[in-house]
Amino acid sequence: MEAIQNLLEHRSIRKYKPTPVSLEVLQEILHAGFRASTTGNMQVYSVVVTQDEAKKKELAKFHFNQSMIFQAPVLLTFCADFNRFNKWCRQRNAEPGFDNFLSFFTAAIDALLVAQNVAVAAEDKGLGICYLGTTTYMADEISKFLNLPEAVVPITTLVIGYPDEQPDLTDRLPDAGLIHFEEYNDYTAEQIDEIYTEKEAMALTQKLIEENGLENLAQIFTQKRYSKKDNILFSQSFLRCIEKAGFMNNEN
Amino acid sequence: MEAIQNLLEHRSIRKYKPTPVSLEVLQEILHAGFRASTTGNMQVYSVVVTQDEAKKKELAKFHFNQSMIFQAPVLLTFCADFNRFNKWCRQRNAEPGFDNFLSFFTAAIDALLVAQNVAVAAEDKGLGICYLGTTTYMADEISKFLNLPEAVVPITTLVIGYPDEQPDLTDRLPDAGLIHFEEYNDYTAEQIDEIYTEKEAMALTQKLIEENGLENLAQIFTQKRYSKKDNILFSQSFLRCIEKAGFMNNEN
Repeated sequence: MEAIQNLLEHRSIRKYKPTPVSLEVLQEILHAGFRASTTGNMQVYSVVVTQDEAKKKELAKFHFNQSMIFQAPVLLTFCADFNRFNKWCRQRNAEPGFDNFLSFFTAAIDALLVAQNVAVAAEDKGLGICYLGTTTYMADEISKFLNLPEAVVPITTLVIGYPDEQPDLTDRLPDAGLIHFEEYNDYTAEQIDEIYTEKEAMALTQKLIEENGLENLAQIFTQKRYSKKDNILFSQSFLRCIEKAGFMNNEN
Repeated sequence: MEAIQNLLEHRSIRKYKPTPVSLEVLQEILHAGFRASTTGNMQVYSVVVTQDEAKKKELAKFHFNQSMIFQAPVLLTFCADFNRFNKWCRQRNAEPGFDNFLSFFTAAIDALLVAQNVAVAAEDKGLGICYLGTTTYMADEISKFLNLPEAVVPITTLVIGYPDEQPDLTDRLPDAGLIHFEEYNDYTAEQIDEIYTEKEAMALTQKLIEENGLENLAQIFTQKRYSKKDNILFSQSFLRCIEKAGFMNNEN
């Protein structure tokens, strides 16, 4: 499919057929992923492929046991990875100085650009994908489980398999509300109302509000889905994971 | 072009024609970008478009005045943005708890998936792109220049325009060196040598080593391109920028 059309038709897939993904297809989409831009062509990322049923079941625990994880044949954990690069430097009499936050973030950018390329390539091959945001919540546990060494941190996970549903496109905010020309034009109260009008009027939104017994959609986000308490808990554990990986030496 | 083919033919473009990018094409590629997956469908990102010549010149300063910035007609700065979402919550009697590191990182992931989709869409329209890794180095200065409010942090920048060069594909490490099955298989010294063999044997590598008067390519990375001193300096300023944006309240 034409690349732009492919992007426009993206929907996250949460129901999968048991059909396996062949090694050939898996390697093809990963190869396309690795063509993504990378800082200084360092390629400071790695991908861990989980296909073994028992391991998938274990890994699912760290992703809140979402049912799609059990259905889909492949999980891909994309990691920020300076381990390989550091080892190479040390074998070449070059002392690496990548044990800091900037280097971590650089590697995370690398990993995310690869992940999105893999997502696009997978969809082009008729596969469905879904990102697991839980990766950063449980980074420490996932690191241990995948045996990640120092200088490697899991950043995001893709569930991959053949779709067993054809969901509608998800709503998006109006493009104009996301674009700023020349400088950031901060939003007036009226503009905020306008940007969220369509989302708030959706039947799905009304259903969610009723189910949750709350006043509106925003409260579902702040009280149910992404509470301050959870965010703080996960911030602390993610920062600990980054630190344990040796990426927080930010002083001379 | 078919999506996978499009990914396989990616090369960063560093010479651009002065041909403008029409508003229609710009909106089309941004629209395709906004179809990317986003955490909880929150869309916690914004894009700042820089086209004004004087502003582009100013912004170029924060990107080491790379010549391609002056040639290309468009710069897109992709930002992690909880400002719009926070404002919406507050207007709906919902108290946002997104002033922490996890929320920052969530928004950064959102911004990066959009950026990569925009890159893919741009190339599908015959445009060339190049990422500017300097965005995180100078995030504080870029924030001020683009007038970014609290809860907004610049994450990456795309240079966009019509290519005035047709560079060869850049080398990549062998795929097998980047993929781990079931768990991370840490590298032996022999494996590291093997993974880097091709890169080290390239004529370009030999040329760089001679020009820099160093022993090998690894030393160019650690001593010239990404020194520990610079990495620490930029780590400190990037963390300060994240903190100033209000994303470092990680305690109850």
